[in-house]
Amino acid sequence: MLIKRRLSNLFLMIGIMLALNSAFAFDADPLPSWNDGAAKKAILNFVAKTKEEGPSYVPPAERIVVFDNDGTLWPEQPMYVQLAFAIDRIKKLAPKHPEWKNTQPFKAVIEGDLEGLKKIGTKGVVELIMTSHAGMSAEDFDKIVKEWIATARHPRFNLPYTRLAYQPMLELLRYLRANSFKTFIVSGGGVEFIRPWAEKTYGIPPEQVVGSSIKLKYEDNNNKPEIIRLSEINFIDDGAGKPVGIQMYIGRRPIAAFGNSDGDVKMLEWTTSGNKQGLGILVHHDDEKREWAYDRQSDIGKLDKGLNEAQKRGWTVVSMKNDWRKVFSFEDKQQDINATGNDGQ
Amino acid sequence: MLIKRRLSNLFLMIGIMLALNSAFAFDADPLPSWNDGAAKKAILNFVAKTKEEGPSYVPPAERIVVFDNDGTLWPEQPMYVQLAFAIDRIKKLAPKHPEWKNTQPFKAVIEGDLEGLKKIGTKGVVELIMTSHAGMSAEDFDKIVKEWIATARHPRFNLPYTRLAYQPMLELLRYLRANSFKTFIVSGGGVEFIRPWAEKTYGIPPEQVVGSSIKLKYEDNNNKPEIIRLSEINFIDDGAGKPVGIQMYIGRRPIAAFGNSDGDVKMLEWTTSGNKQGLGILVHHDDEKREWAYDRQSDIGKLDKGLNEAQKRGWTVVSMKNDWRKVFSFEDKQQDINATGNDGQ
Repeated sequence: MLIKRRLSNLFLMIGIMLALNSAFAFDADPLPSWNDGAAKKAILNFVAKTKEEGPSYVPPAERIVVFDNDGTLWPEQPMYVQLAFAIDRIKKLAPKHPEWKNTQPFKAVIEGDLEGLKKIGTKGVVELIMTSHAGMSAEDFDKIVKEWIATARHPRFNLPYTRLAYQPMLELLRYLRANSFKTFIVSGGGVEFIRPWAEKTYGIPPEQVVGSSIKLKYEDNNNKPEIIRLSEINFIDDGAGKPVGIQMYIGRRPIAAFGNSDGDVKMLEWTTSGNKQGLGILVHHDDEKREWAYDRQSDIGKLDKGLNEAQKRGWTVVSMKNDWRKVFSFEDKQQDINATGNDGQ
Repeated sequence: MLIKRRLSNLFLMIGIMLALNSAFAFDADPLPSWNDGAAKKAILNFVAKTKEEGPSYVPPAERIVVFDNDGTLWPEQPMYVQLAFAIDRIKKLAPKHPEWKNTQPFKAVIEGDLEGLKKIGTKGVVELIMTSHAGMSAEDFDKIVKEWIATARHPRFNLPYTRLAYQPMLELLRYLRANSFKTFIVSGGGVEFIRPWAEKTYGIPPEQVVGSSIKLKYEDNNNKPEIIRLSEINFIDDGAGKPVGIQMYIGRRPIAAFGNSDGDVKMLEWTTSGNKQGLGILVHHDDEKREWAYDRQSDIGKLDKGLNEAQKRGWTVVSMKNDWRKVFSFEDKQQDINATGNDGQ
């Protein structure tokens, strides 16, 4: 039996050595959708230094990395996806709520006043969903979100929203996890809207999603207990709320943070002012052709203070136009179609 | 190159198969401090079924297991450890707070009225620590907890508190993790008191500790940002708060829950009333000799409703006296010492 075990160890060793050898020798680019440039270099260097023996080494357990969601991992134009969800839901529920016809913001939703709704902000969206889905169980809400996300389509790309997760960020999430980073979402959006699809889309499990939340209540419900959604905001995970959310839910300072708007500035500030050299990255929406171009003056995802702070604090600004070889996974196909003039499908 | 990679795969496969084979053939008891009996059997069966193909199979990502802390993972007698911490701290801070001499519960602490303090409960302890450590940064509080836990000693065992983690539970935590369970603490105690030492003691990282909390505030502090502890309770993670805390922080219903008092009943109820067969376990303190014996009438860790519910709902009650071969890791040594009459050290 001892011989058997020794034999197995020997084979394991040989296998692992050969595997390592071939991994090093033939290592493919872990970030193929990133063009070679300062941003890609900053990320690769940071990860390498984290693993290197020396002052920048970070033990795997402390390799916490946080990502904003809207505008960082998927598009937030022409409106927050969660707002599109809220609008669809409110329209569906409106017949049962005649009072909404005269109450804002429901009135604007029902009348299709999208310009007015654009300015609603994170808190407004959370409130909209909260008030329209209060009194319902968390489980039922989860089902509603899953059904919606499976069927709704983005107005510009006519694809399910989850297919719009930025390809370079999906590669980055995988690359970081492969290097023992623990990936978290820290979003201003409602946590119960993101959790139902984040695992499938980003590989991020529910327990690694931090977001805005409403208060919840446990009800026995005749031995069929339920968690009921209340009509009261619990926590807004935006701006200075982001580092607070990180402390409350994660309990460790991240060593890398990715955002795209002024709502992420405090999160990046917190991440990059620890004892260890933290990585701060802002995704800059400057690609009108493939996605959208907006920054200092935008209603949605305004990036003004962030661009100033990036310079002062040495954060890396990712140009979607120049740093990303592709934005979406479906792009190559479309480009091929365009290139060959084959639009006859 | 392709051949080399195939070769490495082949060796890896052979190695893994042999390793698995010998693992099954020579598998040691994963729970050596548990006596053979109904409780141990229930745990082993549950884990085996979770991994078996069939209706009880649970994918690894959903193998969420939650543990109460005080009285479940370590002793809560003669008082909650966190209360011992609060008392030490308040005595230390008292000279700077002359007003405490006339304010309860500070007065009781300073005067050593321990009987009065015993009845203070989870919320009382959280409030005590909150008010005495408000205005301080989370980072500084973390340091204070770490220093205290490294030096304070349990009055009965004269050992650091972390050495009193129940040996059978440490084995259980390891065993569950080895079977792809994700282990969480869900405690009525303050989350910022538990996180600083939970990873070293239980192998549970800060982001997997759910507990009671106070409100926090982010402050720029002239570019040296801090998270400041406020003097306001944010969330009490006890009783019906436990399933709510689970939903807020974990976002998935656990498939196994371990507790020891009536404050854990709702958590077990929630865990065992899902679609999948959930495991509910109550640790029963019935070993006066090695630990303490208390249940239905106790001020601390009262277990009354829980014992009734266990019968009704098929929860397993663990007798510390009968089900645990040892309670503490240092026991064998002490027993050996007693057995040989060698007390001359």
